[in-house]
Amino acid sequence: MVNAHETGDRRPNTRTGRRPGESTTKDTILAVARTRFADAGFDKTSIRAIAADSGVDAALVHHYFGTKRDLFVAAIALPIDPAEVLKPIRSAQLDNLGATLATAVLQVWDSENGESVVAAFRSIIADGDTDLISTFLLQIALKDVAQRVNHPVGSAPLRVNLVASQMAGVLLTRHVLELEPIASMPADELVALVAPTLQRYLTGDLPTTRTSPG
Amino acid sequence: MVNAHETGDRRPNTRTGRRPGESTTKDTILAVARTRFADAGFDKTSIRAIAADSGVDAALVHHYFGTKRDLFVAAIALPIDPAEVLKPIRSAQLDNLGATLATAVLQVWDSENGESVVAAFRSIIADGDTDLISTFLLQIALKDVAQRVNHPVGSAPLRVNLVASQMAGVLLTRHVLELEPIASMPADELVALVAPTLQRYLTGDLPTTRTSPG
Repeated sequence: MVNAHETGDRRPNTRTGRRPGESTTKDTILAVARTRFADAGFDKTSIRAIAADSGVDAALVHHYFGTKRDLFVAAIALPIDPAEVLKPIRSAQLDNLGATLATAVLQVWDSENGESVVAAFRSIIADGDTDLISTFLLQIALKDVAQRVNHPVGSAPLRVNLVASQMAGVLLTRHVLELEPIASMPADELVALVAPTLQRYLTGDLPTTRTSPG
Repeated sequence: MVNAHETGDRRPNTRTGRRPGESTTKDTILAVARTRFADAGFDKTSIRAIAADSGVDAALVHHYFGTKRDLFVAAIALPIDPAEVLKPIRSAQLDNLGATLATAVLQVWDSENGESVVAAFRSIIADGDTDLISTFLLQIALKDVAQRVNHPVGSAPLRVNLVASQMAGVLLTRHVLELEPIASMPADELVALVAPTLQRYLTGDLPTTRTSPG
């Protein structure tokens, strides 16, 4: 969605049609970004630091990739901007958050883009580049949701973890393990089944609602 | 638990201390078993057919590996016999099945053997040997549970799918992605959080309780 759009770099394997050296520079920036985001997390990583490590100006990083969030999305090679996917959630009623979230996420996974998401998911699990995905889930994809469900204060990380566990499990059973009947079930039926789980995790009275583990 | 125990083959990489040819034969049997179980499922695969494909007697397969279920466990290289893990579930009250299941599964994953389970899980997801894991989950590991929760008749596969989705997601968030707070949380707290979800999936009045998808 992000840099591919802005640079016109849409063909598979395309490293052509640009000035020599540009794609190398972009690759360097992406590699540096992946390392920094994984090491320090999203909030504590600056475009300036990534630019410095890459031997370029911050302005060039912005020129190539847009905002810091755009750079992150490009760095983890997401086929879809999570902000787009999660847009409906911002306007959803609090008591309908579970169903809205499940619907939005399933729409992506079940779409043509879903294949890339499943591929990314598999390779992340295999390669163990899990710091990036944790950062992505907690600090980016589910950040807006977290802010809305932080009751009592400090319970948001746990709530978001639980939601991630159920949705990752659905992705796994539906699109990786392809267990039946979940694999072939219409999305709206699957949403109806898991939405109460998500809703309880997001707004329910959990036995352990606190920030950090004992 | 199974053949490793019976043959004394416990050292890593050990293929020694046995008659020459024996380990080759065992490897052949395991390879054939993996193929047959993946293609035809557990119930429709016979020891006799595996023996024939391996060029040996059925008696030798039994001698090396024990029962068909033992052979399956060996074939998918499980470090632990799932029957042992799930033993507490058979004696659990129906209304306590969710908590009992979560406790039993977490006990394994959090144990020393858990590392092998996580490794197996990662490689299955990466390699896509998903027919075997589906067979394992539905026809072996959760078979007893399925029989107990098949109300209304035909709803068991869906219920077991949903349980698998939540537990696989917990394995993923706790041991692969290591999201906090779930990664470091005491097992009993995590059980208290997910048990109501599992219980609803197992015995709750689901919006879609039927055998096959629409």
